[in-house]
Amino acid sequence: MALRRDLKTVDYKDGKVFLIDQTKLPERLEIIAYDNYKDLNWAIKNMVVRGAPAIGAAAALSMVLGARSYKSMSLSSFREYMVEIANEIKNTRPTAVNLFWAVDRILSVVLVGNIDNINILKENIVLEGLKILEEDIEANKRIGEFGAVLIKDGWTILTHCNAGALATVAYGTALGVIRAAFDQGKHIKVYADETRPRLQGAKLTAWELVNEGIPVRLISDNMAGYFMSKNEVNMVIVGADRIAANGDTANKIGTYSVAVLAKEHNIPFYVAAPTSTIDKKIPTGLHIPIEERNPKEVMYIGKEKIAPDGVEIVNPAFDVTPNKYITGIITEKGVLKQPYLRSIEILI
Amino acid sequence: MALRRDLKTVDYKDGKVFLIDQTKLPERLEIIAYDNYKDLNWAIKNMVVRGAPAIGAAAALSMVLGARSYKSMSLSSFREYMVEIANEIKNTRPTAVNLFWAVDRILSVVLVGNIDNINILKENIVLEGLKILEEDIEANKRIGEFGAVLIKDGWTILTHCNAGALATVAYGTALGVIRAAFDQGKHIKVYADETRPRLQGAKLTAWELVNEGIPVRLISDNMAGYFMSKNEVNMVIVGADRIAANGDTANKIGTYSVAVLAKEHNIPFYVAAPTSTIDKKIPTGLHIPIEERNPKEVMYIGKEKIAPDGVEIVNPAFDVTPNKYITGIITEKGVLKQPYLRSIEILI
Repeated sequence: MALRRDLKTVDYKDGKVFLIDQTKLPERLEIIAYDNYKDLNWAIKNMVVRGAPAIGAAAALSMVLGARSYKSMSLSSFREYMVEIANEIKNTRPTAVNLFWAVDRILSVVLVGNIDNINILKENIVLEGLKILEEDIEANKRIGEFGAVLIKDGWTILTHCNAGALATVAYGTALGVIRAAFDQGKHIKVYADETRPRLQGAKLTAWELVNEGIPVRLISDNMAGYFMSKNEVNMVIVGADRIAANGDTANKIGTYSVAVLAKEHNIPFYVAAPTSTIDKKIPTGLHIPIEERNPKEVMYIGKEKIAPDGVEIVNPAFDVTPNKYITGIITEKGVLKQPYLRSIEILI
Repeated sequence: MALRRDLKTVDYKDGKVFLIDQTKLPERLEIIAYDNYKDLNWAIKNMVVRGAPAIGAAAALSMVLGARSYKSMSLSSFREYMVEIANEIKNTRPTAVNLFWAVDRILSVVLVGNIDNINILKENIVLEGLKILEEDIEANKRIGEFGAVLIKDGWTILTHCNAGALATVAYGTALGVIRAAFDQGKHIKVYADETRPRLQGAKLTAWELVNEGIPVRLISDNMAGYFMSKNEVNMVIVGADRIAANGDTANKIGTYSVAVLAKEHNIPFYVAAPTSTIDKKIPTGLHIPIEERNPKEVMYIGKEKIAPDGVEIVNPAFDVTPNKYITGIITEKGVLKQPYLRSIEILI
């Protein structure tokens, strides 16, 4: 049941999109094929695929499936139809900016004025979708290279949620950095926060690392501070769902708490993300929309109901870590440093 | 299925000890009767009863059951037998000092030299056990009175784990303070951390508060920082398993993280505990033994397995919050303030 390194979390072939069903892991490695953009949108919304770069790739492919399903030959109504589909996809999940970025990138191909053959246009859309997938893998590998330099031999790295191969097309961002350091022969160890409520740390990160033979300890989220206070954590690396122009970073709920704890213990705290996660249109993290998900995600763990009826539950899926807690942002173009407003402006 | 206010978490009547089975809540309110100290020790070890003051009360009653089971009339061998039983009880759980305190208190009755009638001695042991129970309830009520003064009308209080009626003989420490403020007509709201791995916040604290009609929101542990950053938390109150002479406080894993977050947001962080939780023999928190529990508590939630085989799991049940993070320690003798070494010395 190992995840082969050449297996992609999001893939496309012959008019079909393939997703590793992340709701089944770690029990079963199942790949689902989609030939309909509406089904694929459902999969994005319901976290069959999750992780900002993977969501972006899936969203691009949803545009591809949408384009392929268009039957008429009218170019102008095709463009209108694609704008509608784009809006549908954009309504699936609000926080990861990669989704909007990827949809808009396909849309810019759709709306290019100089193509008058609908079949060529559809072909270009498919090619752009595949390019987004390829670029994501390449970006992750460069993130890995830039990030691995920061990791010293013997270090223990704490990560939150899953920013691994499963959160991207392949390889991973935060786990890509860890993978790269491990491949360089560095003796490293990972603490994986289980990451309630959806437990992506326990179910996905632990699974990826166990498969790769990278030593991993699973802890509940509330243990991170304890192990930091015992000097057992040398570095924190997390992924990102959206990074504002000033470096404020939205990521899985609990990331902010880890960042505060890291600061209190003088532990470097890094974000690893492709530049497609940076939203320069948003000045600060205050403007990032935070998705509220179903309270049942907190109330139930699998079939286990954990709390009494009558209790109110809130379930914000993300939080924002202000830039002051972030030691650096590892991108495919290099490691951004403070002040982020400036380094993002210059590098991106 | 409401917990009546006159229902005790730990009780004794006619040679039997009664415990609310906390492993069954919130689904079922079951009370188990014990007439054998070995069974009762098992219940302490396996968290049928938990919470430092409740553990103390149960441990005292385990001594009572042990004493009653002694059949011979030899006073000197009775005393030896009771010392052995005391050691057995002390081996059940290492962190909560109330257990050692309660056992030693019964032992001091056992070892009193001037009683030569074994039946009178046994009677005295029973009376001392009952006194510990009564004193715990009284202490909690006084903690409630001292603590309620600190809570302003309209405040939202975050608590971690369960320091309620279920963690004591009745009424509660941290939740006792919340109860007292609510009974005074203050409009308060509680954020309850679910408290992985055993979920005492979700299963016990939420249940107690729902039963009492005190508004409560359940959050996963990693959300506390998010809500603090949104200015939605005015105060933190937690219980304690052991407080060192300098005020360093061992409590359920995750308490330390909450304390760091509270400090970062300038939110007052209070510990509520009877003075029986203070261990003046221990100079600092570094000397408090931290119980490591079964990794299965992290791996399984009910019957749900959350992580892949092969992942290493560590499960420290407690952490230590250094005194500098603690705004005050609410005891039945008053609210202790910095410097704790001095205030504990003076008041206790």
